[in-house]
Amino acid sequence: MFSPPPPHPEPCLQAVLAEDPITNHSRMGSECCRFVVMILVANVKRLTVGITVSAFTFLFLPHFVCHCRITVQKAQHASYLPDTMPNHKSRATFGFLLRSFNPFFHRPWNQHLLPSPTSSSRFTSATFFDKKCSLLQHDAIRGDHQVFSFFNPFRNFLQTKQWGVGFQHKCYGSMAELVQRNPRFSKLNDDDVRYFEGILGTKNVVQDEDKLVASNTDWLHKFKGSSKLLLQPRTTDQVSQILKYCNSRNLAVVPQGGNTGLVGGSVPVFDEVIVSLSSMNKIISFDKVSGTLVCEAGCILENIMSFLDNEGFIMPLDLGAKGSCQIGGNVSTNAGGLRLVRYGSLHGSVLGVEAVLANGTALDMLKTLRKDNTGYDLKHLFIGSEGSLGIVTKVSILTPPKLSSVNVAFLACKDYRSCQKLLQEAKRKLGEILSAFEFLDGQSMNLVLNHLEGARNPLPTSLHDFYVLIETTGSDESSDKQKLEAFLLGSMENELISDGVLAQDINQASSFWLLREGIPEALMRAGAVYKYDLSIPLEQMYNLVEEMRSRLGNTANVIGYGHLGDGNLHLNISSPRYDDKILSQIEPFVYEWTSKHRGSISAEHGLGLMKANKIFYSQSRETVQLMASIKNLLDPNNILNPYKVLPHSLIS
Amino acid sequence: MFSPPPPHPEPCLQAVLAEDPITNHSRMGSECCRFVVMILVANVKRLTVGITVSAFTFLFLPHFVCHCRITVQKAQHASYLPDTMPNHKSRATFGFLLRSFNPFFHRPWNQHLLPSPTSSSRFTSATFFDKKCSLLQHDAIRGDHQVFSFFNPFRNFLQTKQWGVGFQHKCYGSMAELVQRNPRFSKLNDDDVRYFEGILGTKNVVQDEDKLVASNTDWLHKFKGSSKLLLQPRTTDQVSQILKYCNSRNLAVVPQGGNTGLVGGSVPVFDEVIVSLSSMNKIISFDKVSGTLVCEAGCILENIMSFLDNEGFIMPLDLGAKGSCQIGGNVSTNAGGLRLVRYGSLHGSVLGVEAVLANGTALDMLKTLRKDNTGYDLKHLFIGSEGSLGIVTKVSILTPPKLSSVNVAFLACKDYRSCQKLLQEAKRKLGEILSAFEFLDGQSMNLVLNHLEGARNPLPTSLHDFYVLIETTGSDESSDKQKLEAFLLGSMENELISDGVLAQDINQASSFWLLREGIPEALMRAGAVYKYDLSIPLEQMYNLVEEMRSRLGNTANVIGYGHLGDGNLHLNISSPRYDDKILSQIEPFVYEWTSKHRGSISAEHGLGLMKANKIFYSQSRETVQLMASIKNLLDPNNILNPYKVLPHSLIS
Repeated sequence: MFSPPPPHPEPCLQAVLAEDPITNHSRMGSECCRFVVMILVANVKRLTVGITVSAFTFLFLPHFVCHCRITVQKAQHASYLPDTMPNHKSRATFGFLLRSFNPFFHRPWNQHLLPSPTSSSRFTSATFFDKKCSLLQHDAIRGDHQVFSFFNPFRNFLQTKQWGVGFQHKCYGSMAELVQRNPRFSKLNDDDVRYFEGILGTKNVVQDEDKLVASNTDWLHKFKGSSKLLLQPRTTDQVSQILKYCNSRNLAVVPQGGNTGLVGGSVPVFDEVIVSLSSMNKIISFDKVSGTLVCEAGCILENIMSFLDNEGFIMPLDLGAKGSCQIGGNVSTNAGGLRLVRYGSLHGSVLGVEAVLANGTALDMLKTLRKDNTGYDLKHLFIGSEGSLGIVTKVSILTPPKLSSVNVAFLACKDYRSCQKLLQEAKRKLGEILSAFEFLDGQSMNLVLNHLEGARNPLPTSLHDFYVLIETTGSDESSDKQKLEAFLLGSMENELISDGVLAQDINQASSFWLLREGIPEALMRAGAVYKYDLSIPLEQMYNLVEEMRSRLGNTANVIGYGHLGDGNLHLNISSPRYDDKILSQIEPFVYEWTSKHRGSISAEHGLGLMKANKIFYSQSRETVQLMASIKNLLDPNNILNPYKVLPHSLIS
Repeated sequence: MFSPPPPHPEPCLQAVLAEDPITNHSRMGSECCRFVVMILVANVKRLTVGITVSAFTFLFLPHFVCHCRITVQKAQHASYLPDTMPNHKSRATFGFLLRSFNPFFHRPWNQHLLPSPTSSSRFTSATFFDKKCSLLQHDAIRGDHQVFSFFNPFRNFLQTKQWGVGFQHKCYGSMAELVQRNPRFSKLNDDDVRYFEGILGTKNVVQDEDKLVASNTDWLHKFKGSSKLLLQPRTTDQVSQILKYCNSRNLAVVPQGGNTGLVGGSVPVFDEVIVSLSSMNKIISFDKVSGTLVCEAGCILENIMSFLDNEGFIMPLDLGAKGSCQIGGNVSTNAGGLRLVRYGSLHGSVLGVEAVLANGTALDMLKTLRKDNTGYDLKHLFIGSEGSLGIVTKVSILTPPKLSSVNVAFLACKDYRSCQKLLQEAKRKLGEILSAFEFLDGQSMNLVLNHLEGARNPLPTSLHDFYVLIETTGSDESSDKQKLEAFLLGSMENELISDGVLAQDINQASSFWLLREGIPEALMRAGAVYKYDLSIPLEQMYNLVEEMRSRLGNTANVIGYGHLGDGNLHLNISSPRYDDKILSQIEPFVYEWTSKHRGSISAEHGLGLMKANKIFYSQSRETVQLMASIKNLLDPNNILNPYKVLPHSLIS
């Protein structure tokens, strides 16, 4: 068992890190694993800060560090350590922790709207902010037994895992084909470095190999580049000068935000120069009346959320990676996330961007207006183009007001058709307060109950075929609850739901969420898993699950769940161990099926390097050709994020 | 006075039309007027259908016909006729009426969410649908005294007027500069016509001059082209063949939807071939669960609304021109309208488009997915580019559920700052149910009270400096009202509002709306008016009104009102008569001021021909240059809607 170090008299952070046990993971399909285990114990003035972690939160360090719910209690220490964990201290990790936790003591935190951890989240204690928290928020921490929490590690962690193939013990599926370095790109030389130092100062021109490791490696440790140079501009003008130079020298460039992408879009493939936006992290303005926020691209999403929280607003997007991802990256990848069902995509919320083109031209489209019909709305070209058309340097975004009342119901439906009808009814009856509509099938529930400790079916009479979780968020607790109750009663009478329960408190709400969000964790425990994150028109969505089930027969367990409200299916195939035969039964069938039903093979992750050549499954040849023409118009030398987004055959 | 004809024994429609009294209106600034007066009396089976019109509804025939609230009562006749109205029957008008009213008896109508007409809307009676209405909706009209209404002529009419400069007795401001026909375009010849007849059939190749008049002339009769050919394709493939041919022959093309644009974007400037989408008017599919509608571009907005109404959904946009405008045109012009404050812009709601490029390539981007991150989202290029990059042939759009409860409050604030704060509070406290937040200043109120019959200040103690109208729309009458009441009480206690009243019934609600929507009408009566429709960041918005007031001193009455929730200011300057000196004091100051404060000189009308050369007031030179490059990429021969959107200097 882990034995914490004695309390340190001065503020400090100590970390114990378990390194990746599989250092040479394959890039070409098959297995990719990653275990990173971290226990942090710190003593800050009179308080011991113990981050206690549950069994689920070992997997990914930066994610955990940034998103875990932290309990601040005197002399509380971590109490779990897997046997495999080596006692290794990493300087880089320590630096990261200091960077991550520094603001922890100096800036205010979000009051969360999310349910608190459940009983199954064993080692995490949680409370809401109370009035004393203003002290915690704005000052050094005082008092001995104050407990505060600002995020739900369980929920956040699992969320992230749902993103895709990354966070699994064993995760299978085809990955990027090998690409060759484009010989037209120049190689970096000393003159280049001197030029950049002239623009940015030596401090912001990073060549240290240790420091470059993090920027060369993606979150999942699936993709690794070999860049020798990381640039950290502080102004749009500097970004402009960098790109102008790179364009003239034919130096390839990777724009990088929080480097939390899952498709290899945010790291170099070869020796591209990394342009990190991290130092452009200022909030420029906030209009409390309109809710319009203007900020630099490098602002971390969670920092923006904290800022807005103080102003009584929220971001229209929320992601598991919020503690690391940056708004510029969010915009460049058209990030989806939790709030999409309520607030729609970034194409609707982003009011303006400032972007720098490959030739160094800075485009000022940083509007703060809801209505502006003066010419083509070109900002949309930069939303979701993954940094391949320009580098987003500033963002203007419309933020909705913060609402305080959250209700959660867990329901059973007899078939998929009833789930659909229920969604339809919920949209009508709950319309303005509906904030989540998730579904899982009986197989998913079975899996969770069998493999996830603490999971309990709140509808215990029998196993139903389908379950739906509904969340409402509004401004008035009592009227929202009344509305939801009336809706549930009506749906019961109409036989849309066969059973159901409405959470009476936040713990119960959390236990409902656990059933939905615990599925990826349960899948991990069940064995090997083949994961697909698809958008499919609602009517056909579940047909894919059934067809896959009949294709695979008894060889694997096919489960379907996801964001029904968004038409986003998580198709997962679980088998005791990895089997090439199973994979060949799944792919390319799953992509072809999705394509045939006009679905999307990438609901929200983008294409990056991983799926650049799979674009035709979701886009017509003519459309892709036009994309390539636009890429060629905006970046004729193809220096911006090469090898990504578009098929390699179309981009020289 | 008008004497109605005796009831006709068979279903028929009779129309009396007053033609435009000013037939030769100027294209170059100064005066533009239009009066069209219409009384319709019809007898259908046992019922006399009398469309009774108020004094305000004379101005624009197609608009009135399509949007008026119709009362169906036995032997009720129109009772108002202005002295100027000639007794003229127009075959074309009669045809239009038959076309418009044919569906009236065969298809269901919207149940409206809007308030019914007020007492000042003198000749209009209104009720809601009752249960018997299913008879009215689906069958011939039965019974003697059933009254039904489906639109509010008053509200709709005034809405339209707010759109801009068009619907005024006298309306001033600079208009389009003269342009020269591009000599690179070919002239139409007989071979061309034969070719089109081969594709479309002779019926859909219109050369009849009488028929061409309507398509050559814009809604405002401000812009007139001289096209000799109107093409009416029925399929995307036909559109594709047309454009491919025109591109190869260098024949310029104007795509045309409902021709309801206000900036001269929808009609030829010279002899461009008109491609009307009117015949592509099929609803292709509707997914009741997701609310996704797919339809052809020529579907009239109101028809889609009626269709959706039956399904329990609404369109996320609503316009005064809904009876004529087409969804393809809405998308191509990124139409804003009434519901924007609640449902956002079309960039958020439109899920997919099918568009044909200038060279005939049909781009299938007709997605029905909420999440799809596979490459650049090019549909946004076609949203708001006014048909200059391609012709939108099909649209897929996400529709919200219909909600039944509407509440309206009319409030007084002591200053503009309080209005802003109130908006902020309303967003927080009413968040999910807020559907309108309109403001008017004391001068606007004064004007309405002095010039608009029936207008009454519901807060009579004294004239306040600012007024705010708040509308909520939700799914539950009682809880919504409760929420609004609590919000109002709180705001009163916080001194954000100095007085206020909550409408107790629909008539009172309408009388509140009248005060806001009656302003353009009151302005017309007050004399000459100079109108500007601007988007300005909220904090600075009212400064423009005050600066303009101090510039003009006593020479004119400057009033400010508009959609505060959208940041959309209607700046209006009223003077007893037109004066060049006043205009020179207003322009270009108003554009320069708007530009300086990063506002938009065209909030929702687009640029069209009228403002193509004014784009630099709202867009940077680099951005406009990129727009021109994209135009050149997609339409190198510049055949699509030439002379419009972009500055003439940039497009050869």
